Amino acid sequence: MDKFELIKRNVQEIIGEEDLKKFLKENKKLTVYWGTAPTGKPHVGYFLPMLKIADLLNAGFKVKILLADLHASLDNTPWDILDKRYKYYSEVIPLMVKSIGADIKNLEFVRGRDFQLKSDYFFDLLKLSTLVSVRASTKAASEVIKNIEGEKAKLSGLIYPLMQVLDEEYLKVDCQLGGTDQRKIMVLAREFLPKIGYKQRIEILNPLIPGLIGKKMSASDEKSKVDLLDSEKEIQNKIKNAEMIAGNPDNGVMAFLKYVIMTIKKDKKEKFIVKRPEKFGGDLEYKNYEDIEKDFINKKLHPLDLKNAVAKEIFNLLKEIQKKKSKLQKIAKEAYQ
Amino acid sequence: MDKFELIKRNVQEIIGEEDLKKFLKENKKLTVYWGTAPTGKPHVGYFLPMLKIADLLNAGFKVKILLADLHASLDNTPWDILDKRYKYYSEVIPLMVKSIGADIKNLEFVRGRDFQLKSDYFFDLLKLSTLVSVRASTKAASEVIKNIEGEKAKLSGLIYPLMQVLDEEYLKVDCQLGGTDQRKIMVLAREFLPKIGYKQRIEILNPLIPGLIGKKMSASDEKSKVDLLDSEKEIQNKIKNAEMIAGNPDNGVMAFLKYVIMTIKKDKKEKFIVKRPEKFGGDLEYKNYEDIEKDFINKKLHPLDLKNAVAKEIFNLLKEIQKKKSKLQKIAKEAYQ
Repeated sequence: MDKFELIKRNVQEIIGEEDLKKFLKENKKLTVYWGTAPTGKPHVGYFLPMLKIADLLNAGFKVKILLADLHASLDNTPWDILDKRYKYYSEVIPLMVKSIGADIKNLEFVRGRDFQLKSDYFFDLLKLSTLVSVRASTKAASEVIKNIEGEKAKLSGLIYPLMQVLDEEYLKVDCQLGGTDQRKIMVLAREFLPKIGYKQRIEILNPLIPGLIGKKMSASDEKSKVDLLDSEKEIQNKIKNAEMIAGNPDNGVMAFLKYVIMTIKKDKKEKFIVKRPEKFGGDLEYKNYEDIEKDFINKKLHPLDLKNAVAKEIFNLLKEIQKKKSKLQKIAKEAYQ
Repeated sequence: MDKFELIKRNVQEIIGEEDLKKFLKENKKLTVYWGTAPTGKPHVGYFLPMLKIADLLNAGFKVKILLADLHASLDNTPWDILDKRYKYYSEVIPLMVKSIGADIKNLEFVRGRDFQLKSDYFFDLLKLSTLVSVRASTKAASEVIKNIEGEKAKLSGLIYPLMQVLDEEYLKVDCQLGGTDQRKIMVLAREFLPKIGYKQRIEILNPLIPGLIGKKMSASDEKSKVDLLDSEKEIQNKIKNAEMIAGNPDNGVMAFLKYVIMTIKKDKKEKFIVKRPEKFGGDLEYKNYEDIEKDFINKKLHPLDLKNAVAKEIFNLLKEIQKKKSKLQKIAKEAYQ
């Protein structure tokens, strides 16, 4: 796979794609950041950006993972538990990277407050605030911040996107990676960074994986996602109870299978195996997601068999993390009372 | 006059008056700040806070004058001329203080950006922003910021009041002095400072003097106010053209006479003299504003005679400043193109 293909696989959209192609042609050493605010508990959906980070590392990028602690507070995380949530994220995110076996030589972790509280940053924030309208900031934050409109909407929700805009500059990156829910903030960054004298960045947008029960995977709805510390039994139960209609591949389990499990399998040149008793046709083996989907649509693959196989793969994926389960549970208990 | 009377004379309102009385009783050394954002050109209306500052110095206060440069930019002053406006303010404000002959031993000037860009300040701003609603901040700024509502309202206008709230803490003062247009921001400060662990301040509110042509004195409307650098002729013309209905003391000229000129006269134990030809009854002499107002209401004092006398007093008041007229004009030309 060539570098551009590798960067683009499983990606929903790249804003500034022509610039990216140009830089790749010039063999420019590129730097990208992915930010995560330590709000809700990270779940298996986080493996999607992890895999993209691995792709970017393999494509020769320098990658910065921003643990955006201040952003978490701007998005309704109480200040007095912020440090505990940061602690949890700073433990589990590196373990997720390790789980997927990425080469972390060019990976760096950065804590938001370590550079965002500097004078220059604040000065630029004030500058930006004189250019960005309340309306534009509200719109940019609308898919990211809880309670962004209405009587109780806090000012912090409007400062949030402006800080994310500045992070592109202050982290000295060429690109930002984020889910499609970040799109409006990324577009804001491309519009306003040049107005305060900085360059436009390339924006790499990952698709959002639907949750297990139909909605977006949500940290606040336990049943909608598999937690990183769930036991094998809990994983089996959650997947068993996930929404899945025979013949319809539009569900969270299959999205996870496609974007995460089968991406890993393909890279490792491993097969995805669906165990079945001989009387139901015996085990099935798949090299790629497309074949699974075809069988599923044609009802050659039963939801329950598929679910069992996926649950098993998820548990395997979490093995590295779960080695530290008791330590992580202790931290999580304080961070998420 | 006792200290409390001195502090309260000409003042519209004191929020936290009981605390002030208590502190005075305890002989506590008090510190107060008055902030001015270098936006429009300072005009003679600025003598009102200057006189109150003199009162506070005489009452034993330490006084800080904040030249709030960042605030000016948050309120629509372009960043590229901000430094020039700051320069002008930093020249004329001290001259105004000098003009009224205050003892400046306990007076200090502070520039906004010298303390507002520090990490702790920004961190507290972020904290505040998670508590203050967009609505509350909009309301607080409504009498201070131009274009605070509507499609083009900038985010800066909502950050402005929060920074003013923090200034009370970071300037380490016990009180803030400001015009009644600042009231909503002061009330916001009293509500929210305790929520981030800081004490409530006493708020001293000056009345706003109406402009010469009926509205609030406005830096953007030349005819509404007397500029500090206006010539004697210009002053005479502006006052001559000011709105004033015989018998009705509700106008900008008489407000200025009351709050500024007669306050100074009284302190200096000087009389206010209205020159009149012998055939119209000869010169009039007044020891206090109340007598002037009485004569005016009873039409014993003609608007034109009064205006001439006021114009003369204003010019006298500006003498100290106008000694540096050519230097100031040069700075003003760059700051207000």
